[in-house]
Amino acid sequence: MDIPHFSAGERCVIPPGFIEALQQRFGARCSSAQAVREHHGRDESPYPTMPPDAVVYAETTEEVAWVARLCHESRVPLIPYGAGSSIEGHLLAIRGGITLDLSGMNRVVAVNAEDLTVTVQAGVTRKQLNEEIRDTGLFFPIDPGADASLGGMAATRASGTNAVRYGTMRENVMNLKVVTADGRIIETANRARKSSAGYDLTHIFVGSEGTLGIITEVTVRLYPQPEAISAAICNFPDLDAAVNSVIEIIQMGIPVARVEFLDNAAVKATNAYSKLGLRESPLLLFEFHGSPAGVKEQAVAVQEITREHGGMDFDWAERPEDRSRLWTARHNALFAGLQLRPGSRASTTDVCVPISRLAECVSATAQELDRASFPYMIVGHVGDGNFHVLMLIDPDSPEQWEESERLNRRLVRRAIDMDGTCTGEHGIGLHKKEFMLAEHGQDALDLMRALKLAFDPHNILNPGKILP
Amino acid sequence: MDIPHFSAGERCVIPPGFIEALQQRFGARCSSAQAVREHHGRDESPYPTMPPDAVVYAETTEEVAWVARLCHESRVPLIPYGAGSSIEGHLLAIRGGITLDLSGMNRVVAVNAEDLTVTVQAGVTRKQLNEEIRDTGLFFPIDPGADASLGGMAATRASGTNAVRYGTMRENVMNLKVVTADGRIIETANRARKSSAGYDLTHIFVGSEGTLGIITEVTVRLYPQPEAISAAICNFPDLDAAVNSVIEIIQMGIPVARVEFLDNAAVKATNAYSKLGLRESPLLLFEFHGSPAGVKEQAVAVQEITREHGGMDFDWAERPEDRSRLWTARHNALFAGLQLRPGSRASTTDVCVPISRLAECVSATAQELDRASFPYMIVGHVGDGNFHVLMLIDPDSPEQWEESERLNRRLVRRAIDMDGTCTGEHGIGLHKKEFMLAEHGQDALDLMRALKLAFDPHNILNPGKILP
Repeated sequence: MDIPHFSAGERCVIPPGFIEALQQRFGARCSSAQAVREHHGRDESPYPTMPPDAVVYAETTEEVAWVARLCHESRVPLIPYGAGSSIEGHLLAIRGGITLDLSGMNRVVAVNAEDLTVTVQAGVTRKQLNEEIRDTGLFFPIDPGADASLGGMAATRASGTNAVRYGTMRENVMNLKVVTADGRIIETANRARKSSAGYDLTHIFVGSEGTLGIITEVTVRLYPQPEAISAAICNFPDLDAAVNSVIEIIQMGIPVARVEFLDNAAVKATNAYSKLGLRESPLLLFEFHGSPAGVKEQAVAVQEITREHGGMDFDWAERPEDRSRLWTARHNALFAGLQLRPGSRASTTDVCVPISRLAECVSATAQELDRASFPYMIVGHVGDGNFHVLMLIDPDSPEQWEESERLNRRLVRRAIDMDGTCTGEHGIGLHKKEFMLAEHGQDALDLMRALKLAFDPHNILNPGKILP
Repeated sequence: MDIPHFSAGERCVIPPGFIEALQQRFGARCSSAQAVREHHGRDESPYPTMPPDAVVYAETTEEVAWVARLCHESRVPLIPYGAGSSIEGHLLAIRGGITLDLSGMNRVVAVNAEDLTVTVQAGVTRKQLNEEIRDTGLFFPIDPGADASLGGMAATRASGTNAVRYGTMRENVMNLKVVTADGRIIETANRARKSSAGYDLTHIFVGSEGTLGIITEVTVRLYPQPEAISAAICNFPDLDAAVNSVIEIIQMGIPVARVEFLDNAAVKATNAYSKLGLRESPLLLFEFHGSPAGVKEQAVAVQEITREHGGMDFDWAERPEDRSRLWTARHNALFAGLQLRPGSRASTTDVCVPISRLAECVSATAQELDRASFPYMIVGHVGDGNFHVLMLIDPDSPEQWEESERLNRRLVRRAIDMDGTCTGEHGIGLHKKEFMLAEHGQDALDLMRALKLAFDPHNILNPGKILP
């Protein structure tokens, strides 16, 4: 398979004694075993493995800083690694170097329930976090499909199904502890809800994919668990009817907590994989959060809108276990999709457009995909104007890979032409670099390059990612 | 009066022919008349005027870029100017140079009502914006006291009374058109509600106070005008009771739209200035937005909490004109305060702390201020943990200026020790530079300096501001 933006032979030269120095410092927590290196040289993307020269399992911010100083002095690439769940090639060690596994930094540092904030080490995963704070009556809403680490979620500006109501990592990270390229330790902000005190370092690192610094601690906002929650499924005669309903719901300002779209193929796949009995037509999954009266009011308002667009009556998921099954099924849509075509590999798209253009963008995309030589399904966090196509390609067919890439390029071009973006939540990694120029223009890219050079002058931090 | 962070004799040398080149390009829109220069060399801070060498009234982004290129080539400082309402010395031309008045760039560029966004030129003010979009059923909530320009509000990361519900400029700016130090024109993002496409240029410029680039267009989020609005006044026996009520309201997650604190002195001043009959004790002004039932529900929940803390019964402001009078009075608190001591000058503080520390911070501050030699009042956007002290000092008394500065330093130190910030919404300008090190630490400041150098290598953009 051809790897865009990767040419072999660019691997760094590891200076003599470098790995030994790491081994002396970290003992068994520094490994150059092939299995360990290969495990850390890939992510959930269709790219082939590209292993680092060694893997270090860090346990403290100071250890991360120590490794960064060594890599900085020796000009050796350094790639932070959390749960390994990214999907655009973020973790491939295309120039070799050291991968820093932060999954052992999995401690909740401080729960400040009275301020609705929590500080965690970068390796804490979203599910672990919600387990650990369950007794506080608070929760953390951001939920990418995978059980990603908070550090990784901050680094890719992740979101998920709750973003329409609670925002993304962009809106929910309050402070970061970061190790700079040369091994200094900074905090980007504090726990004040707002501040005008100088440049916004927090947002510089959120979404920087390990290329500007290594996030070792994350402080995020928490929310009171809603007094009442209800979830409902609404089937539609076609895709347009579903998407147009969403557009109207958002324009009315109804504070839905979740509104997820599944096309017909996604419904079928989910039924099969998660043993659900969803009616097989395009549908929306809703969740409403609030007071009992507020939830009812939202549901009535939404149902009025969906009916006007030809939606069927709501199927309610009343019990917590039913809701949980439904959302687990939604989060497993990727795996469900893969079962549509056993042995296939998924190539996933991730555009986001202004809500007014969503129906047009989804429809045009579906029409093109109907002519593809492989099956596909569409799912979307449509309340944000964000949707994904899963293209199920034959891993042994370069033609299907090429075809899926071509369709993705056309989709991205369509989204950018609609004043949208080539990635709503997955990030750039390797796979989306080719779109950076079209989305941002040369002058904005130059500013990004100037920022990278200022923060990482020797280009050691996750080199070759984001910037074309 | 002593000016911290300003030493005379640092003014730039304007090269021969420079002003003439501007005059040739801009005609009467380039002025070096003393009155014009002096008008642009001050803001609402107590600092003395420090005029630029000339003022250019720009009307297009291209004109701004033309001036930036000229200043960049000639190493002449360039200061963007909106409504002139900043209060920390942001606009003083401490090294001379050119002030670029953007108040003529006051056109609404695009209303995208269906996407809940609007794009405006930088000189559009918040009141003008809300006038122009009134018919869409949408509104823009961010409301600093002054009728500031949207460009200036973005540049200082402004907020106001609605931030507790709707966020600050940080959360509401979606895209910026910016002229770089060397006169290139970029857009920082697009109109997608979320994106993971590379570095977050938008947030780099929001809060950068004209030191990294010149904002010429701003795209912000809009919100549907709430179906129902109600406002209420709640008096308390003392400051602690009021602030503790707010803490509990926020912790319960009740989505109040506004919750403003006025201490006894602020109530008296507001009564006198705005001809209101508020009961004279510390009070909270509330506003609730939502459906009729939702608004009622919020009000009931809040009233339960305030009663538990000894709050009196709500006084309701039912009619739109009563609400409008109330909020206009709140926005005029600064002017009302100045009338407490005719002929005085106001020195204003602006800290923000985690909500759990708010009562402690406000109380300790009030206790210290009770021993001051001048009157003061406290008002606060307390739902965010943000409050202001207005110290009414004798402009002819260097001792009172020194005393107010000393009290402000102690307040800022207290806020930073509580994991808060030296400025919640006013920005750094000249006046808060001395706190940047204590708040951020040396290593974080070094990163900010690296960013400044990368974006403005000749230090021509609003030099001498933000960074100590």
